[in-house]
Formats: sequence, C-alpha cells, structure tokens
Amino acid sequence: MVPTIETTDSVLTAVPPTLRWHEGRFSVLDQRQLPHAVVYRSIDTLHDGIDAIRTLSVRGAPAIGVAAACTLAVVAAERRHQDLQSWLRHIESSAAALAAARPTAVNLGWALRRMMAHARMVQAPVDLVPEAVRIEAEDRQLCRGIGEHGQPLIRPGMTVLTHCNAGALAVSALGTATAPLYLAHAAGTRFRVIVDETRPLLQGARLTAWELSRAGIDVTLICDNMAAAMMDRQCVDLVIVGTDRVTRNGDVVNKIGTLNLAVLCQHFGIPFYVACPSSTWDPDTATGADVVIETRDPNEVRGTAAAHVPVWNPAFDVTPAALVTGIITERGIARAPLEISLQALLG
Amino acid sequence: MVPTIETTDSVLTAVPPTLRWHEGRFSVLDQRQLPHAVVYRSIDTLHDGIDAIRTLSVRGAPAIGVAAACTLAVVAAERRHQDLQSWLRHIESSAAALAAARPTAVNLGWALRRMMAHARMVQAPVDLVPEAVRIEAEDRQLCRGIGEHGQPLIRPGMTVLTHCNAGALAVSALGTATAPLYLAHAAGTRFRVIVDETRPLLQGARLTAWELSRAGIDVTLICDNMAAAMMDRQCVDLVIVGTDRVTRNGDVVNKIGTLNLAVLCQHFGIPFYVACPSSTWDPDTATGADVVIETRDPNEVRGTAAAHVPVWNPAFDVTPAALVTGIITERGIARAPLEISLQALLG
Repeated sequence: MVPTIETTDSVLTAVPPTLRWHEGRFSVLDQRQLPHAVVYRSIDTLHDGIDAIRTLSVRGAPAIGVAAACTLAVVAAERRHQDLQSWLRHIESSAAALAAARPTAVNLGWALRRMMAHARMVQAPVDLVPEAVRIEAEDRQLCRGIGEHGQPLIRPGMTVLTHCNAGALAVSALGTATAPLYLAHAAGTRFRVIVDETRPLLQGARLTAWELSRAGIDVTLICDNMAAAMMDRQCVDLVIVGTDRVTRNGDVVNKIGTLNLAVLCQHFGIPFYVACPSSTWDPDTATGADVVIETRDPNEVRGTAAAHVPVWNPAFDVTPAALVTGIITERGIARAPLEISLQALLG
Repeated sequence: MVPTIETTDSVLTAVPPTLRWHEGRFSVLDQRQLPHAVVYRSIDTLHDGIDAIRTLSVRGAPAIGVAAACTLAVVAAERRHQDLQSWLRHIESSAAALAAARPTAVNLGWALRRMMAHARMVQAPVDLVPEAVRIEAEDRQLCRGIGEHGQPLIRPGMTVLTHCNAGALAVSALGTATAPLYLAHAAGTRFRVIVDETRPLLQGARLTAWELSRAGIDVTLICDNMAAAMMDRQCVDLVIVGTDRVTRNGDVVNKIGTLNLAVLCQHFGIPFYVACPSSTWDPDTATGADVVIETRDPNEVRGTAAAHVPVWNPAFDVTPAALVTGIITERGIARAPLEISLQALLG
C-alpha cells in the first residue's frame, strides 16, 4: 500500500490539510496565499522543500518538521539506485540544507535528526516515507491528546479568545490551542471564538480566522488592541493560546501580544490557558528571562503606512507563570504552582 | 494687514502646519498622503472644504473645527457683493452642509455656530477670516496651556508612550497629548517616545511617529500588542494619550486600545495621563457607560489580508476613572478622586 499523509483529523472535514503525501507526490498548502486561495505547491526536489520552508509557504514548528521529513523522503527516493554510502551522504547534506532554512525552528532539527538516525540503520537505500508518516501520525496523536484534555474547558455558549495561529495550519491535524475547540465543536458544543488579528504578520486574521470558519465555528475577528474593550463588556470567558517554549518554572514564550492578553485576563478575572505538546516544556531553561527573544525586520511593522522611524519588532514575549491558569498538554493540564505541576506531569 | 493662520507654535519649526491661511488663500495639509508626501490642498470653494473634511484630508476634532470656520470664511468672501440677507442665507446653508460632513465631530458644529453668530451681528457682509483666526488662536492657546501644565511630568532620560494621534496634526499647534512633549523638547529635555501604531487606521504609525520625528524627538514605533513586552522590560515610564470625551466621573472615551494601555499601566505600576482642553469634560454625562461607542466598517480591520469573517470594529473604548492617574488640561491637572478634582478645576 502506498503510504499517505494528510495532516488533518477525522473531525476536521472542511479544513484542507497543511501537508499531503498522496500517490507518491508530496505537496504543501501555500499559506502565503491564504485566505484568498487554497493552492497546493508540489515538493519534487530538495530546493522546492527548502524554498517552501524559507518563504513561509509552510509555517508553524510541527508542520515545518513534518514538511522537512517529507522533503528528505523525496530526496532519498530520487537516489535509491545509488550505493548506500553515496545515498547516505546525499541525504545528510540535504538534511543540513533543510535545517538551515529556518535555523530557530526546534522541531525542524529534531525531525531531520530522527530521519537521519533511521536512514543510518538500514543496510541499503530504502523508502523513507514510512518514517515521515510516523512523525506526522505522532504529531496528530499529540494534538488529539491536547484536545481531549482541553475540551471540558469549552462549555456551551461561552466565548473563547485566541491569538496568532496555533491551529491546524501550524501543526498536524487539530493544532494545539485550537484542538479543544475543534473537538468541542465536533461534539456539538456551540460556542464563539474571538480571533486577534496578531500584528505585524496577521496570522490570526489570515490563518486562524480562516481555518476556524472553514470548520464551521462561529468566529469574530478583532484588532489586538480591542481585546480589553471586549473583556470589559464581559464578552470573553476564556483565553487559549499556543506556545513556542515553556521554561522550567512555567513561564510561557509565545507570539508577541500574549503577555498583553495574560495581563488583561488577570485584570478582568478571565482564565488564561496555554496549549502545547509536552515536548515544548524545556526543563533545562530555568525562567523566561533566560530566553533570547528574536527581533525581526522593522519593515514588517512599517509596511507601506508608517513613517521611516526606528521600529522595535520582537517576535515573541514572555508571560510569567503567575499569570497562567493552566498549561494543557497531551498528558493532562498543569496548574499552579506550575513548576511543581509541570515536573509531576511531564518530568 | 492680511490675516494669517498657521496652525503651528513657535517651538514647532520643523512640523508643517495642518492648516494655512496665507495671502488670502486657505489650504490644508493632506493627511491621507502622510508620511509619504507633504502636500497642501487648496480650499477655494465650499465643495473643497466639505470634501477635505469628509475624506479625512483634515482630521482631529479641533483641526476640523478650524478648517470648517476657514471654509465658511472662503464662502463668505465669494459673496461679499450680495445684500446682507442673501449673503447670510448663503453662508447659513453652507454651514449646514459643512456640519453634515462629519456629523459626530463636536468641534465642527461648535465652530460653525460661532461663525454664524458672528455673521448675524454685522450690518453688511464682512470678512469672516478674523473670526476664524480667533478660533484658531484660542485652540493654540489651549494646547500651550496643556503643554505648560504637563511639561513638568517629562523628566530627562524618561520614555513616554502614546497612542493614536492627539498631536499637532489633529489639533492646532502643539496638540494635546503631544503638547508636554513638544514643550519639554524645546526646553532641551532629552527623552524618548514610543508610538503605538494604532490599528486599524494606523494614526500612530502614519501621523504621530511622523510629526514627532519631524520635530527632532527620539521616536520608536511598535505594534499595539508590543506595549506589554516593553513595559515588562521597564522601558516605559509614563503614558500620555488624548481623549474625545471625559465624563463627569472622569471616565475617558478615547481611541480603541486606550483601555488596554491603562490596564497595562496599572499592572506594571506606570502613571497613565490623559491630555485635553477643559471643553472635553462633559459634566452632563455621568459615566462612560452612558456613551454610545461608534462601530465602524469591518473592512478597516480586514484590509486585504483577512478572511471574510465577521469583524467587531469599535472606534473607541472607555477607560474607567480608577485607572487614570491624571487629566492634564489648560487649567491644571485633575487627579484622583477625579470627579471631585474635575469639578473643582473645571466646574
């Protein structure tokens, strides 16, 4: 049987998969063209894969990891006629080139190392697609687990606010922050989601609003600076966001704007949850103060509208553990005191 | 002597005036073209004036009021050969048409009523330019007063954050929120200003960053959702914003995103000031809950980037008096308890 990847979940029939491996061809949903067009880009060569990752056709740490694994499987298949050593050398150099496409993406390096470890164990060139399929299936299972633990938080009639895209487009299948929403929706719970547009790159407006509305969920888009006014009108019952890294003490590194929401939640008495696979917890980093925050191109903020003045454009911020109600993982929800709870759940 | 209007202040030599009456011709700085081009639009007819106000070539409540008064002076000059009754009828119908250009702008109606009251007292058609000049001069004096009371708040080396545009472009001369900044800068105090871009219409990015940097002030532009991260790094010492209306109890109605900043200031222990002329205090409205908030076109938020999902786009929010450190007016600074302090200062 020809292996198949479709990065979607059985409850998500209306959201196109982020990645597809179908009848021997690999392709990625070109997220740069969303929400205007649903276009798949074929990945037939190493260069295609690198370009798709570098230009953000595919984005979101887990999705990048699976895309890189699939690209390596494409490369490995091209050279299956070679002897083992030549084949290994070729996929090793390809893996190094892929890893350099987005050097800060943790899952990218991890997925490539896993693919290489698999390749180094074989006696002759093999099909690497099944290993890529396993990586994707495991990601999908993690999202399911996050969704199952988070789903009870979503009660009928409530309004949930989310930020950026920690959804199906960033991850396999159900996403992280969106997984409880998709499962609750599939179970017939009716609720409303407020999506922050998420300046400067507008992942909320372009991606999250699109994927949730495709799935039939009641979505309203706002600018980031409108969340306070909405909370003041008692229109938000719960906030769920994703995260790029959780430090040992429970500090949360996530898309810029997350700290803003956490402070608002404390002021207005609204629960603030973070969703991630357990692998996002980094017990080797003590606190958020130890994390170097990437600052990005000023022109992302300036666009065409702004004066040519200096810009500060940090990609992430750090939300202190004290502002976090709970961290939803595939193994359960860690709650205050977070450091002890994370250690007990994931350590 | 030919009357002259230049809506600027002697300390502001590098910022082009918002409005000019020069050698008998009236023109407005076309704010739609900022920050890319500094272009003046001549206002030679009633239609020119209405169009400039309606299309936001000129914006900001006080600037709109002066622009309407000047347009009425243009109209009155055109018909000075007519008999008094025809002349009065013509400028009355013109004033009604101007008032309809931005029906919610309080200063627009006020300035037009004042011009009409003046016209109705004369024995024959007269030049109305001097009355428009007086309105502008009074606005300029109010801004000076706000600046003088607020200037002591600006200490050497501090960082001040502002939101939207309550600057020279919105008002005559020094603006409101910007008046303490311009006076402190002119007095040789060195400080830094952080400007929120102010989604969805980007008045901070397009206008405030431009006018402050033109004046030689050290400006950094951020997205609205970055203010929390900047405060968390102890990079903000003071916030000053303008306001559209202050209710009897000291609640502040201002551009969407203001409440967000006020909550952040409370959390991070940063003083939160509001600057406005005393006429902005509305003792006839008890609290912010009594103010109807305008919601605007969803496409302002969607732009070209967003999914076609429902949007909530309120133009303003209400900051409760309890989050306001002080209200800076031309008569002094009102402080907590605001209701009593405002009554004592302005009542």
